[in-house]
Amino acid sequence: MSDNNRFLHPDRLFSAEPKARDLSRALYQSISDLPIISPHGHTDPSWFADNQNFKNATELLIIPDHYVFRMLYSQGISLNDLGIPTIDGSYTETDYRKIWHLFAQNYHLFAGTPSRMWMDYVFVEVFGFTAPLNASNADHYYDQINQCLATEGFKPRALLKKFNIELLATTESAIDDLRHHAKLKGTGVENTVITTFRPDDVTNPESPKFISSLEKLAELTGENSFTWDGYLNALRNRRAFFRDHGATATDHGHATPRTEDLTKAECEQLFSRILAGDFDAADAETFRGQMLTEMAGMSLEDGMVMQIHPGSFRNHNTPLFRQFGADKGADIPVRAEFVNNLQPLMAKYGNEKNLRIILFTLDESNYTRELAPLAGHYPSLKLGPAWWFHDSPEGMLRYRHSVTETAGFYNTVGFNDDTRAFLSIPARHDVARRIDCRFLANMVLEHRISEDDAYSLAKDLTYNLAKNGYQKTL
Amino acid sequence: MSDNNRFLHPDRLFSAEPKARDLSRALYQSISDLPIISPHGHTDPSWFADNQNFKNATELLIIPDHYVFRMLYSQGISLNDLGIPTIDGSYTETDYRKIWHLFAQNYHLFAGTPSRMWMDYVFVEVFGFTAPLNASNADHYYDQINQCLATEGFKPRALLKKFNIELLATTESAIDDLRHHAKLKGTGVENTVITTFRPDDVTNPESPKFISSLEKLAELTGENSFTWDGYLNALRNRRAFFRDHGATATDHGHATPRTEDLTKAECEQLFSRILAGDFDAADAETFRGQMLTEMAGMSLEDGMVMQIHPGSFRNHNTPLFRQFGADKGADIPVRAEFVNNLQPLMAKYGNEKNLRIILFTLDESNYTRELAPLAGHYPSLKLGPAWWFHDSPEGMLRYRHSVTETAGFYNTVGFNDDTRAFLSIPARHDVARRIDCRFLANMVLEHRISEDDAYSLAKDLTYNLAKNGYQKTL
Amino acid sequence: MSDNNRFLHPDRLFSAEPKARDLSRALYQSISDLPIISPHGHTDPSWFADNQNFKNATELLIIPDHYVFRMLYSQGISLNDLGIPTIDGSYTETDYRKIWHLFAQNYHLFAGTPSRMWMDYVFVEVFGFTAPLNASNADHYYDQINQCLATEGFKPRALLKKFNIELLATTESAIDDLRHHAKLKGTGVENTVITTFRPDDVTNPESPKFISSLEKLAELTGENSFTWDGYLNALRNRRAFFRDHGATATDHGHATPRTEDLTKAECEQLFSRILAGDFDAADAETFRGQMLTEMAGMSLEDGMVMQIHPGSFRNHNTPLFRQFGADKGADIPVRAEFVNNLQPLMAKYGNEKNLRIILFTLDESNYTRELAPLAGHYPSLKLGPAWWFHDSPEGMLRYRHSVTETAGFYNTVGFNDDTRAFLSIPARHDVARRIDCRFLANMVLEHRISEDDAYSLAKDLTYNLAKNGYQKTL
Repeated sequence: MSDNNRFLHPDRLFSAEPKARDLSRALYQSISDLPIISPHGHTDPSWFADNQNFKNATELLIIPDHYVFRMLYSQGISLNDLGIPTIDGSYTETDYRKIWHLFAQNYHLFAGTPSRMWMDYVFVEVFGFTAPLNASNADHYYDQINQCLATEGFKPRALLKKFNIELLATTESAIDDLRHHAKLKGTGVENTVITTFRPDDVTNPESPKFISSLEKLAELTGENSFTWDGYLNALRNRRAFFRDHGATATDHGHATPRTEDLTKAECEQLFSRILAGDFDAADAETFRGQMLTEMAGMSLEDGMVMQIHPGSFRNHNTPLFRQFGADKGADIPVRAEFVNNLQPLMAKYGNEKNLRIILFTLDESNYTRELAPLAGHYPSLKLGPAWWFHDSPEGMLRYRHSVTETAGFYNTVGFNDDTRAFLSIPARHDVARRIDCRFLANMVLEHRISEDDAYSLAKDLTYNLAKNGYQKTL
Repeated sequence: MSDNNRFLHPDRLFSAEPKARDLSRALYQSISDLPIISPHGHTDPSWFADNQNFKNATELLIIPDHYVFRMLYSQGISLNDLGIPTIDGSYTETDYRKIWHLFAQNYHLFAGTPSRMWMDYVFVEVFGFTAPLNASNADHYYDQINQCLATEGFKPRALLKKFNIELLATTESAIDDLRHHAKLKGTGVENTVITTFRPDDVTNPESPKFISSLEKLAELTGENSFTWDGYLNALRNRRAFFRDHGATATDHGHATPRTEDLTKAECEQLFSRILAGDFDAADAETFRGQMLTEMAGMSLEDGMVMQIHPGSFRNHNTPLFRQFGADKGADIPVRAEFVNNLQPLMAKYGNEKNLRIILFTLDESNYTRELAPLAGHYPSLKLGPAWWFHDSPEGMLRYRHSVTETAGFYNTVGFNDDTRAFLSIPARHDVARRIDCRFLANMVLEHRISEDDAYSLAKDLTYNLAKNGYQKTL
Repeated sequence: MSDNNRFLHPDRLFSAEPKARDLSRALYQSISDLPIISPHGHTDPSWFADNQNFKNATELLIIPDHYVFRMLYSQGISLNDLGIPTIDGSYTETDYRKIWHLFAQNYHLFAGTPSRMWMDYVFVEVFGFTAPLNASNADHYYDQINQCLATEGFKPRALLKKFNIELLATTESAIDDLRHHAKLKGTGVENTVITTFRPDDVTNPESPKFISSLEKLAELTGENSFTWDGYLNALRNRRAFFRDHGATATDHGHATPRTEDLTKAECEQLFSRILAGDFDAADAETFRGQMLTEMAGMSLEDGMVMQIHPGSFRNHNTPLFRQFGADKGADIPVRAEFVNNLQPLMAKYGNEKNLRIILFTLDESNYTRELAPLAGHYPSLKLGPAWWFHDSPEGMLRYRHSVTETAGFYNTVGFNDDTRAFLSIPARHDVARRIDCRFLANMVLEHRISEDDAYSLAKDLTYNLAKNGYQKTL
């Protein structure tokens, strides 16, 4: 670690108050070498399956990172000029050096954002730069990054090792063939890179891919996925297939955390109407709600940990969506409600000790009002970390300050990076570790926990809770 | 006070910054000996009426405290193993020493929670322990607590004195006969322990006890509580009866703070339909809303202070409710709305200077958006302190930081412990006093109030505002 | 500046931690002399047009300031006793010295509020007092303020200069004749005092003045404002007239930020029904929503910056409204929703680089959930500063802590004082500057931005962002 760097200070993110800073640093040093557990994210499994060198700084660091290009876009820089691929065939820049320059010229826009902090970490810790990026050193940066990327030590599997990643979960659709994960067997990283079961395409009747996904589901499983029983069995079958590729968890990205507890007859009737196209938005919501409950029931059977990530208005910018497609920085959080929405599921399975449901939110008003009280009561519920826009120093501090008093530390599950930006993984975990140590140090100095407890909690928050929280429960 | 205790530090909860800590401590020392005013809570009046010794540590400290057992339950420990009484006749543990061990083994789960801080205070300040509870000293703890509890000095009335409690309000249903309060006369604590009028069972048509409560109301008052006028008169009668037993306040635990201002004809019609069982959920909400307005009207007649505690989804865990009944840690906050809901009541009585309505919330987003602006305008409105899940160091800090700028200090009413855990009362008030002093010290050091003002405000927040805020207004 | 004043400390509002305080002070000193840009507010243009002396302390500092009298009112002091003019002809106090005494006697009620801090600033920095106001020096204060006000140096235009105000925007109704602004030409402050176009009376069908305002609109523009095309052209005409009087911006005070994107036929039909009085609340909301979209379209044509200030329940206290009229401290914030509400407008114009829409909120839960993600994506959106109840030290800190990580600094537009209290303008800007410097200092000390960046950002937040953010975009 480079300790005397003017743009990546060794005491960054700790409180400035001297005693708090000293204790934060000591706590941090006690856990900074622990391996990374990354139990939820969106890296591309082909990177690890094929182990090819990354191409260049722009294609690796800018084009896939919607945190980065949404900020530039908000300041009037077009996505075309940033090389973002279009889906309507319109022109987009392909001169990657030119795009890198545009990024460097506008790097000041990121002041105070987590993207800046992650990017600086990558520049210093991964690529060894000693001066911050700006317009005048953009070429030097671009060339040096590209040189590094061309070497053996920067191949994806080498980086897994360099980053001290013990576990990295990717996320695949329920109808993915998992060919990349299959290819990992024998490479030495087959126990490091695992998949996660994400069935949204086959549980959301409003997905344009719903019917074709059900056809694919039938094809993959041999079940008749157009009957209610066959559909459920097909899902069971795919869950088992995912577990064979390392999956310990499922993930559900519904707009709301609505759950239902319908009778079997009601389910069959609703499913029929949906297959017949004879349904409205309320029916679709009911169906998604019932499917969360069904998925919880299957988790109880097979021990997979269930994650619920609700509350995003996807693709809010319709013209941009038509031109560039999904995941372009235009997913905007909306208010979320958990107490009424989860009640049917909780009444059915909430008291099961062998069920683990991890809840996330983009609506921070849920923390003290709903989520901490729910997780501080139901044995099946745990709280995921500060998510997405809240995966940031301030967001993490608000999370710890808000949930700890009611849910305690042990109803949380450590950190998730949730990223598709592979190189930022150590940076993101580093931010989380620093903020947790800062929080714990302040608790000690305010005599709210003992110093011994703080050291023990630092290890739990960094490693044990993530490791245990995402283990299969059966 | 034991000042050099490793698990109850004399500077706990103050800011770690040295000057802030010093001033916090000085402010705290100026008010720490003031008597406790506890104007709202749920202790059992029979304790003070009968003055029997408490039985043992488990029955006193664990079984009645849903803050404690909900956290253990959330981590997979069954309520049966914790000795929580069932209502369905199923088995529950009665080996209280065994339950105490289970608690001690899991005491680490409370790290960072207010329960831990309150419990440690009780262990140190009430029972004189010098080392934190853990699995290996569980027997020592259990025996020493039980020994203390068997002595004269630990009888309820002796503890009232030891705790320096000047006033303790319990809460009784409108149809309670107040026999325990009656028995207090002549015991020397008749002016210390008073009741509070809680009419929810007779104002909520959806309560299963509604009709039987109305019958009881008729029986107790001689009024025909099945006519609108008779019903209101019966309530007036009971309010007077409660005032005769010391009550200065009423309390209303509706799901929402909805209020109405119906004509008398509309009231009579609605009441008839309700008595006939011919009503839906909206009618019930309208009726509850009208009853808040009626109660405000009666407060204007008789000077009783009105408290509104909305926003809890009671008994969210239906299987647990069926087995164990109410108040088992499964009451979960939901979003609350005050501005539209209170408007009818405010339009009718909001400008009355002889009316005092104290508002509470479980939804902290109300603080800056709704509650502080309302209390900073209407002469009838005051803000209750941070409540329930927010009765915690962080919750209190958020409260002060959120409401003070718009409502000022003088539209608040000091601290409520709102507890059924008698021994925790001094601990809870101590936390509130420390946090208020911390807040005031920071205000001084940021030159936002003067040091003189801080000393004066510390006394107001600790004593005067509670004392005056809950005095009858006529 | 008076630096050793016991009630206006030179380090007020900075963190108490010594290093943070030192850096805050240094940053503040680097920007404290910058001119004031006040791009949004409600001062009376006749003050600058007529340049008459203000009359007395009470009429200048108390009667027009609803922040001040609402707090006194909330504590049981009647508005009549405070000299607030009635509209129903009922008596109100006119002994201004007596009112001043009442204010002085109750000055302690403002402890911890921004009003206290602004008022103290005015007392020290504008009038030169050295001891805080209290009951015993009330006469001294009253006389000295009145003496000052009678002098040449305290005339409105002299104060503009003394306060170092480079730009001051007032706000006028779309049908205002702007006579005061016209009168400014040749006075030397014609480029300092500008107007803002506020069309609410002519875009809100539920305004009691709607039809008469449309008649006035026709009269002023020669357009037939009772046809859809004529109505839009009349608005275009007025916007041009306002631009001729310096306006660079429009302002929209709708209850919600609902927007619509109707076809022209639908607009014509809705407009007809509204003119015929054949509409309900939903129609009115649709019309207001459509008008926000129309106004955005006109901003794209003429480059005027568009401000949206939603979320206030106006005149909540109906009896008070009947007696005293609007703006009497009874406007209460309600929950706001931006993501769904703005979607139609964003789909139509959100990607326009030559459109600038500045969003404000009274619901702080919007900051991280909705506003920062929206502004951190759409090129047309910028965030206004912490508004109204949140124009306070705590409110500003919450704002910066909440929005910066997702929106960055450069999607914000500096400070607005939004005040009708002319003398408080420097005080309010001073608070904003101090809080921003405090925030930046802490960012530096936590190594989240560099010290160089902090100095540059301090200048941007104080001056450049306000200056540029409110410049016409064409």
